[in-house]
Amino acid sequence: MRYLEDFQVGEVVDLGSVTVTEEEILDFARRFDPQPFHVDPEAARGTIFGGLIASGWHTGSLFMRLAAIGVLNQAVSLASPGLEEVRWLKPVRPGDTLHGTYEVLEVTPSASRPDRGTVRGLGELTNQRGEVVIRIIARNHFARRNQPSAGGGTL
Amino acid sequence: MRYLEDFQVGEVVDLGSVTVTEEEILDFARRFDPQPFHVDPEAARGTIFGGLIASGWHTGSLFMRLAAIGVLNQAVSLASPGLEEVRWLKPVRPGDTLHGTYEVLEVTPSASRPDRGTVRGLGELTNQRGEVVIRIIARNHFARRNQPSAGGGTL
Repeated sequence: MRYLEDFQVGEVVDLGSVTVTEEEILDFARRFDPQPFHVDPEAARGTIFGGLIASGWHTGSLFMRLAAIGVLNQAVSLASPGLEEVRWLKPVRPGDTLHGTYEVLEVTPSASRPDRGTVRGLGELTNQRGEVVIRIIARNHFARRNQPSAGGGTL
Repeated sequence: MRYLEDFQVGEVVDLGSVTVTEEEILDFARRFDPQPFHVDPEAARGTIFGGLIASGWHTGSLFMRLAAIGVLNQAVSLASPGLEEVRWLKPVRPGDTLHGTYEVLEVTPSASRPDRGTVRGLGELTNQRGEVVIRIIARNHFARRNQPSAGGGTL
């Protein structure tokens, strides 16, 4: 398991890839984002997008899956206070394969809580045409080594 | 249908409420955020959260659902370029009822594209104890009135 101290500024983690199907796009959007260009392939053709596109929250959640498996579940994660920025740069369409990366931008021990600290990271998904489709700047809290109050056995 | 011109700075839209179940929290997290405090009620008890909490992307997607129904599907929406900020302020737990609001912060016609413009808005979900659990600052594009290239029949 990784602790705050194990994250190095400039490190880039390869998160692997995920392919999104039309059925998954429709299923997510029916539950969470029922706009015509997300839930209705026919209506979507008449919009500025010219066809069905994934909800931006779906795209973000696909990044989250890769980051949970590739980074957070390999570390003593204490969850996230939030995101500084989310940019949806290109539409995500049925059949797209998205490749994820996570770059460590900043590592900051907490001033008030010696058992933890924050990693500021840049997450991106890139499609099979080499286009970045989403860019996320996130803050995540991690336990510091040898600090039993937050780390180790308590998680 | 509402156009850009119909959004007034300071307007607050009541988005109604949604209740989230343990099964929904588990289902979302197994797909998109398989961290122990999101997918495993037993393991979650041993974490800093003391029990199962919803993925932050799930909470954001619940806000999205309310905003799609209450705002975007009532307007000629041209989707969103991104979010400026997402803050997860309190954990969301099974059985929580979340009430949504959307406040118009800024309305800006596009300088380069006369058929559209941007609304900058503040979205919040508040739980049954009156605690704001998520705060989102979003940008959304909308068509302007009487501008056939983006608006009206094309969407």
